[in-house]
Amino acid sequence: KTQTKDSDPVTGDNEPEVMGGKPIYMVSDGTGWTAEHSVNAALGQFEHCLVDRGCPVNTHLFSGIDDVEMLMEIIKQAAKEGAILVYTLADPSMAESAKQACKLWGIPSTDILGPITEAIASHLGVSPSGLPRGAPGRYFPLSDEYFRRIEAIEFTIKQDDGALPQNLNKADIVLAGVSRTGKTPLSIYLAQKGYKVANVPIVMGVELPKSLFEVHPEKVFGLTINPLVLQTIRKARAKSLGFSEEVRSNYSEMDYVRQELEFAGRTFAQNPVWPVIEVTGKAIEETAAVILRLYHDRKHRCSMPRISKLY
Amino acid sequence: KTQTKDSDPVTGDNEPEVMGGKPIYMVSDGTGWTAEHSVNAALGQFEHCLVDRGCPVNTHLFSGIDDVEMLMEIIKQAAKEGAILVYTLADPSMAESAKQACKLWGIPSTDILGPITEAIASHLGVSPSGLPRGAPGRYFPLSDEYFRRIEAIEFTIKQDDGALPQNLNKADIVLAGVSRTGKTPLSIYLAQKGYKVANVPIVMGVELPKSLFEVHPEKVFGLTINPLVLQTIRKARAKSLGFSEEVRSNYSEMDYVRQELEFAGRTFAQNPVWPVIEVTGKAIEETAAVILRLYHDRKHRCSMPRISKLY
Ligand SMILES: Nc1ncnc2c1ncn2[C@@H]1O[C@H](COP(=O)(O)O)[C@@H](O)[C@H]1O
Ligand SMILES: Nc1ncnc2c1ncn2[C@@H]1O[C@H](COP(=O)(O)O)[C@@H](O)[C@H]1O
Ligand SMILES: [Mg+2]
Ligand SMILES: [Mg+2]
Repeated sequence: KTQTKDSDPVTGDNEPEVMGGKPIYMVSDGTGWTAEHSVNAALGQFEHCLVDRGCPVNTHLFSGIDDVEMLMEIIKQAAKEGAILVYTLADPSMAESAKQACKLWGIPSTDILGPITEAIASHLGVSPSGLPRGAPGRYFPLSDEYFRRIEAIEFTIKQDDGALPQNLNKADIVLAGVSRTGKTPLSIYLAQKGYKVANVPIVMGVELPKSLFEVHPEKVFGLTINPLVLQTIRKARAKSLGFSEEVRSNYSEMDYVRQELEFAGRTFAQNPVWPVIEVTGKAIEETAAVILRLYHDRKHRCSMPRISKLY
Repeated sequence: KTQTKDSDPVTGDNEPEVMGGKPIYMVSDGTGWTAEHSVNAALGQFEHCLVDRGCPVNTHLFSGIDDVEMLMEIIKQAAKEGAILVYTLADPSMAESAKQACKLWGIPSTDILGPITEAIASHLGVSPSGLPRGAPGRYFPLSDEYFRRIEAIEFTIKQDDGALPQNLNKADIVLAGVSRTGKTPLSIYLAQKGYKVANVPIVMGVELPKSLFEVHPEKVFGLTINPLVLQTIRKARAKSLGFSEEVRSNYSEMDYVRQELEFAGRTFAQNPVWPVIEVTGKAIEETAAVILRLYHDRKHRCSMPRISKLY
């Protein structure tokens, strides 16, 4: 039995041509994720009009663009569609070509990589390589960091949802909170950054694993959330999982939600070293930033709050 | 039993002050991940001298900086340490303060958010809000996208390592490859982008699940890797898992590695619609970019290769 292919899970579209947003072209000689990340942050500044498609925007990501013919074709197409261009091109002659062609065709353009690379070059007194990632001859080194990140991800997956409580002491960070406070996506986000994370669900009336109270309490973070918001999330969850009416009502019923949050609150109060993080209204990466800031602050008590990294 | 806290898993350090790299300060009113991502990409241009700490660099991330006093304190500290400053500040008066203070203190600075926000503002004919993410009153909306991403992550975790083959048809993307081709971190990376991913290990002499051949073949991607590189990775893995000599030699012995890759190659040859992706020398996010490009190209056969998204 072969399935038919349905519309894209992420963009929800089938044909970019028929979509009506103002086009933003993103071009990279690498993956394009840096350009995409920057554009996303900037689009956050237009949320007031993006909401309800007040000023729809269409982004188009072109990755792996490492020859000038391809680049010119994309810029011509951008001109045709009335797009602006955002680019990251390591080869200075490619970056210059992009700039000049955009000028020629009247396309506003922004160089994401150039300014910061130049600033770092002056700072270090070293010339940039001008080589795109993935250029022939450049090999991705199997560094310690590579292995560490993979280990963190594999550890974190295995520890999800309270599994293997005997391993909690091997985690760098332990998250505790009631169902649907975002423990799983948060754990995964932190794991990608190289931290081994374990998460422990708090369920009313269920005893927490003893090992949670045996790990260093500065590793443990409690998550809390507004009960109304939690109820909304749980209702959506219960529906998508097809819970029976009975289980569902218990799981997302307001009284129960409140009591369970209070139960969690009492656990947190009994462990005053655990910071309690309010996740209401925060995106996963925002909660992650709060946790990592605390995590690093606790290490360097006397310095300014910062996350430092040696390259 | 309380554990002592050991050195940081990610930075490997205990005291930032004693590290010797040239400092790069990153300041954001949000999480700081955008600045970090851009700095990381730019640092890729200095790999030739960063390797072996030829020109060591120290990054310092300051997130959630939303008042001007804190900002000034950081800039003064940057001046003291001889750092450069990279910033993303949504409030135009904060961004201007950063710029002016850096000028005053003689600190080279780069604004990551401003130029691209201005370009988009002109393009849309809409003024930016000037509000940082997480500003009071701004609430993170529980959008469909939020739920979709969480569902993708939870799905992907459950499907890891060939689990629940009966669910392969529910995946957007299915990855197949021998052990240590990076299926797990790749699956997780794609899941964070909102794709439901399942990965299926290919093990010599073990029959693949029937359901793998029943899903739409355009969903399936084969992963392959240079046998020498794979052997290196497997040796590291076998050691870290503490495999016994016997299992270890089979798993990472060159003949076995080669034969298993050939076995995978034959499977791929029998399923010519599956693209086979060479992962040797590629970072996870590079392989992800290749897969998503193919994934989207196959949808929009007649347009230019791109990933489009409507906001
Ligand atoms: N490790 C690296 N080495 C060299 N250049 C890189 C590296 N990582 C990213 N870049 C460059 O930084 C820009 C953004 O990368 P990407 O996010 O892959 O599009 C591109 O121009 C890449 O070529
Ligand atoms: N959803 C959003 N709404 C408003 N501003 C945002 C949003 N996402 C990111 N930004 C801004 O973009 C910059 C980079 O964000 P961050 O990566 O969180 O440091 C910061 O100045 C944020 O305030
Ligand atoms: Mg969970
Ligand atoms: Mg795996």
